[in-house]
Amino acid sequence: MRAAIFRKGNIIVDTVADPVPSAGQVLVKTLCCGICGTDLHAVRFTQQFVERSRRSGGRWNMDPTRDVVFGHEFCCEIVEHGPGTDKRLKSGTLVCSMPMTLIGNIVQGIGYSNDIAGGYAQYMPLAERLLLPVPNGLPAAHAALTEPIAVGWHAVQNARLTADDVPLVIGCGPVGLAVIAGLKIKDVHPIIAADFSPARRALALRMGADIVIDPVETSPYQSWQDAATPAGYDGSRFAQLFGLGPKQRPAVMFECVGVPGIIQLIIDGAPAGARIVVVGVCMESDRFEPFFGIVKQLNLQFVLGCTGEEFAASLHHIAEGKLDVTPLITGHVGLDGVKGAFAELANPERHAKVMVDPWA
Amino acid sequence: MRAAIFRKGNIIVDTVADPVPSAGQVLVKTLCCGICGTDLHAVRFTQQFVERSRRSGGRWNMDPTRDVVFGHEFCCEIVEHGPGTDKRLKSGTLVCSMPMTLIGNIVQGIGYSNDIAGGYAQYMPLAERLLLPVPNGLPAAHAALTEPIAVGWHAVQNARLTADDVPLVIGCGPVGLAVIAGLKIKDVHPIIAADFSPARRALALRMGADIVIDPVETSPYQSWQDAATPAGYDGSRFAQLFGLGPKQRPAVMFECVGVPGIIQLIIDGAPAGARIVVVGVCMESDRFEPFFGIVKQLNLQFVLGCTGEEFAASLHHIAEGKLDVTPLITGHVGLDGVKGAFAELANPERHAKVMVDPWA
Repeated sequence: MRAAIFRKGNIIVDTVADPVPSAGQVLVKTLCCGICGTDLHAVRFTQQFVERSRRSGGRWNMDPTRDVVFGHEFCCEIVEHGPGTDKRLKSGTLVCSMPMTLIGNIVQGIGYSNDIAGGYAQYMPLAERLLLPVPNGLPAAHAALTEPIAVGWHAVQNARLTADDVPLVIGCGPVGLAVIAGLKIKDVHPIIAADFSPARRALALRMGADIVIDPVETSPYQSWQDAATPAGYDGSRFAQLFGLGPKQRPAVMFECVGVPGIIQLIIDGAPAGARIVVVGVCMESDRFEPFFGIVKQLNLQFVLGCTGEEFAASLHHIAEGKLDVTPLITGHVGLDGVKGAFAELANPERHAKVMVDPWA
Repeated sequence: MRAAIFRKGNIIVDTVADPVPSAGQVLVKTLCCGICGTDLHAVRFTQQFVERSRRSGGRWNMDPTRDVVFGHEFCCEIVEHGPGTDKRLKSGTLVCSMPMTLIGNIVQGIGYSNDIAGGYAQYMPLAERLLLPVPNGLPAAHAALTEPIAVGWHAVQNARLTADDVPLVIGCGPVGLAVIAGLKIKDVHPIIAADFSPARRALALRMGADIVIDPVETSPYQSWQDAATPAGYDGSRFAQLFGLGPKQRPAVMFECVGVPGIIQLIIDGAPAGARIVVVGVCMESDRFEPFFGIVKQLNLQFVLGCTGEEFAASLHHIAEGKLDVTPLITGHVGLDGVKGAFAELANPERHAKVMVDPWA
């Protein structure tokens, strides 16, 4: 089969061996696979990615001296059932799956593996028991957004939200946009979102943000204060000590940037008692000032990925029209276009999510 | 009145003006005041303390070029009622108070103020409405431990504990010991505690720890694993994905050291899903690796001080014998002994809490 392969630091297109489904596996044809920021990171900062992954327990234990086929945001069509499958879904069924497969009782991640090609290849050996049929005739490109949307939904699910909270989303790349989509489903308002890019701010509005901020012009934290502070609020220590007057609404701030320094910026800007949900994946060492977290009694919740339930819920949110993912898709490429798309994705004005069709 | 004064980098004993109670204030005679690690920090790292305090909003806005009288863990006796007081507590009553007073509707912190002498002076002007009478004939030295015990209770109250949690306390100085006391009252077991000092480990056992660890000999995190992992636990991704077999008990880890690097050490040692409660007050810039917090989906809750309710509850826990604070008191000094006690407190084998009697 053909695949876009990460080989010796480059993305090239070549043929690799067709996968053969083992017990419990189903061979699927990859219809569509999104390019994730983590893929870009794995290419640009390979040694850092490999070293951090190894130190974190080897969940993504790719060896960059060997071929790797990326791609973990996919929608596929069932082609062939392997041995020991119950064939509950027929050949031709459109399916999604969490980015992993099962080899017996061993979970094998898909997307950064040297042994199993990911969604930038024409076929994959998925685990039958992890397959979800795509409902309601949803197009494959929309179904392929289940994984990134589920990452935002997971962040929102772990934010311990109440209806009184005022959320602030820092960064409106694909991760921040997925968080905004999750907040919209949770119906927590106003949703305030900040990004330097006009295109991303426009996308944030389309995904459900109520207020969008250009940090060059307006402080996101001041905008949060304006939205969360009731008339007659008295911020003095005396009023706080004796619980006098109306209260400020609670703050929940989503870090969706993932670069060194951003966590401390949010710590500096957050009001006392804020919950900060760290969704951006910073792979570098970072500096922070514990004292300011302490004085404000902040809470930091780090999150990653999603659960099976959140993945399934996200597919249904998309398929049932609870959120329109159309604006997120800003480009389509075949395998030959993957290398160029990786370069173009560096420009936030140009793209949010680029979809790879390995058969185009 | 006499006071131990922080003057131009030194602790000296001198006389300062007697306070005069203003409206709503009560003049109290300080019977006993504990020396806090933050006092030591303010002396040894004065510029850092002042700069961090200023940047954090000026809650402890002391000017080190002027006299400061420290002391914020006190028990006092009412001497005289100022104007506009309702005299609900008679002269001679033993009282505790949160470390602050009221000047009209202005809250003024006690302990790091240039304007109001703290508990290392013979008299203080406390706010009548913040006074709590000391019940059950509790000795003043025990009542003076209300504030540090309340800091531990506050940390425990903010840990979102369940009966299934297995707590690990890193550092058994006064803060860690107060956390252990709070955990004992919450009846969450086993309480695991780690400290390099044999004397502090012995104190941890007396305050309620079930298992104490010398980190030189045993990893606190391995000890936590041993205590929290049921027989037949399967840590594989397959078992986790499908919820198979018994679960590991949840981790809640209390950081009670407050030096750079310790938060990352706990991030490295913590199991996935752990809640880390940061009680130690690190005033320096620190490094951490967000990626490892992300991969483990950790939660960091920073805490500071206590609420009025937690302060009152702590006084009652002590007075009703729910916890015996006697082991914590390892020394008594008069004002002339404060300077020497500051030096001696650097040795963890020698002291936990030293009590200052400004009348001795």
